[in-house]
Amino acid sequence: MKTLVIISHPEIETSMVQNFLKASAAPLEAITWHHLDALETLDVAAEQALLRNHERIIFQFPLYWYAAPASLKMWLDTVLTGQFAFNGRQPLAGKTLGVVVSTGTAAKHFQAGGSEQATLSEILRPYELVARKLGMTYLPPLAIHQLGYWQETDKQCLVIDYQRYLTQSEFNFDQQLAWFEAMLTKKAAEATSPEAQQRLMLLSEQFADKRSELTDLNWQVQLIREEEGEG
Amino acid sequence: MKTLVIISHPEIETSMVQNFLKASAAPLEAITWHHLDALETLDVAAEQALLRNHERIIFQFPLYWYAAPASLKMWLDTVLTGQFAFNGRQPLAGKTLGVVVSTGTAAKHFQAGGSEQATLSEILRPYELVARKLGMTYLPPLAIHQLGYWQETDKQCLVIDYQRYLTQSEFNFDQQLAWFEAMLTKKAAEATSPEAQQRLMLLSEQFADKRSELTDLNWQVQLIREEEGEG
Repeated sequence: MKTLVIISHPEIETSMVQNFLKASAAPLEAITWHHLDALETLDVAAEQALLRNHERIIFQFPLYWYAAPASLKMWLDTVLTGQFAFNGRQPLAGKTLGVVVSTGTAAKHFQAGGSEQATLSEILRPYELVARKLGMTYLPPLAIHQLGYWQETDKQCLVIDYQRYLTQSEFNFDQQLAWFEAMLTKKAAEATSPEAQQRLMLLSEQFADKRSELTDLNWQVQLIREEEGEG
Repeated sequence: MKTLVIISHPEIETSMVQNFLKASAAPLEAITWHHLDALETLDVAAEQALLRNHERIIFQFPLYWYAAPASLKMWLDTVLTGQFAFNGRQPLAGKTLGVVVSTGTAAKHFQAGGSEQATLSEILRPYELVARKLGMTYLPPLAIHQLGYWQETDKQCLVIDYQRYLTQSEFNFDQQLAWFEAMLTKKAAEATSPEAQQRLMLLSEQFADKRSELTDLNWQVQLIREEEGEG
C-alpha cells in the first residue's frame, strides 16, 4: 500500500508537530511526503496522478479557524475538478482518506460544554463529506493536541500510532498484530550490530509465538461481550 | 447599521448568483461590497479596520467541497490574527455574522438520507464556531439552491429576503414590519414621477395603518399557540 501525505502548513519549518511527524515517518517505505505550501503552482494533472497512484491519502494540518489552512482548500478547489471527480467514474473509490490534525487546545475542550462547544468529528465533517463524495473510506482522524506538553513515553506511542495510521492496511486487531510483526522483522533485518539483530529476532519470534495466543484471547473477549449482550 | 459583504468567489463575473445579489443590494445604503479574490494582497490592518467599522459581517460564497472557496479561508487565517481576536478583548463582540451560500444542489439533498447526507447547518458549522469564538451572533444562513431554475416571482422574493438579510436589524416580526415600512417610505421619496410617488405614499400609509393590526394578529397567534402548549 502506498500512502500520500498531503500537508497544509504555512510555517512548517518551525512546527514542532510537523517535524515530529516527519521524523516518525522517515523509517517507513512507500510514503510520499507532499507539502502544499512549498509548491509554487498546482499542476492539476500531476496532483491527480499522485492521487491515482496512492491507496491511502492523508490530509495533515494544524487546525486554523476550525479547518485546514487555506492551501488545502485551494488544493481541493483546484485539483478535484468536476471532470476528475464527477465524470461518471470515481477514480478514488475504494481508497482511504485519513486526517491528521494538530491543535493548540486540549482534547477536553472539543465537546458540548467545552470551550470549543463542538467535537472534532463535527468540525472535520466537511473532509468526511469529501471522502464520501469521492467514494473513499474515511478513517477516524488522528488528533494531536498540544504536543508541546507531552511526556516522552506518550510521544513514543505517538510515533507508533502515526506510523500505523499511515501504513496499517486495516484498523482491526488482526492487522494491528500483523503490522507489529512486520515492523519487528524489518527492524531485525536492518539492525547494524549482530547483538541488536539477535535481540530483535528473538523479540520478533516471541511476538509471533504470542500472536495466536493474542488472537485467541481477543476472540474470547468478543464471545464474552456477545454473551453479555448490550446490558 | 453598516454591513460588510465579504465575497469569496474565484469566477464572480460569470456567476449568475453573484450578479443577482449585487443588483439586489444596489439600492441599499451602508453596504460595503468586498470581493476577496479581486484583492492582490491582504492588508491585514485595513481588513481589521473594515471589520471594526461594520456591525454586520456577511460571508458570501458558493459552496465548493463543503466550504467556502480558498480565498475566504486565506482571509480568515490572515486577518483574524491571535493579536486581533484573542488579546483579551473581543473587537467584534456583539456584531452579527451572516452566511449567504449558493449551491448547485437542490435543498432536499442536504439532509440525512439525501445525496449529501448532511444539513447545511452541519456543513457550515465551522463558520458558526468562528462567530462564537469572536463573540458574534450567528444568523441562520441564507441558502440559495440552483437559482438558475427559479421562477421570476421566487427571484423577486429573494431580492427582498436578501435585502432584509443584509439590513434588517433583528429577525423578529416587529422588525420585519419596520423594515418594510422604512423601505416603502424610502421608495416613495425616491420615485421619479409624481404618479409613482403618490401610489407609493398611499401604499406606505396603508401599510402603516395595517401595521398595528398585523402586530395584534401576531400576538393573538402567539397566545393561541401558548394555550395549545406543545401538544
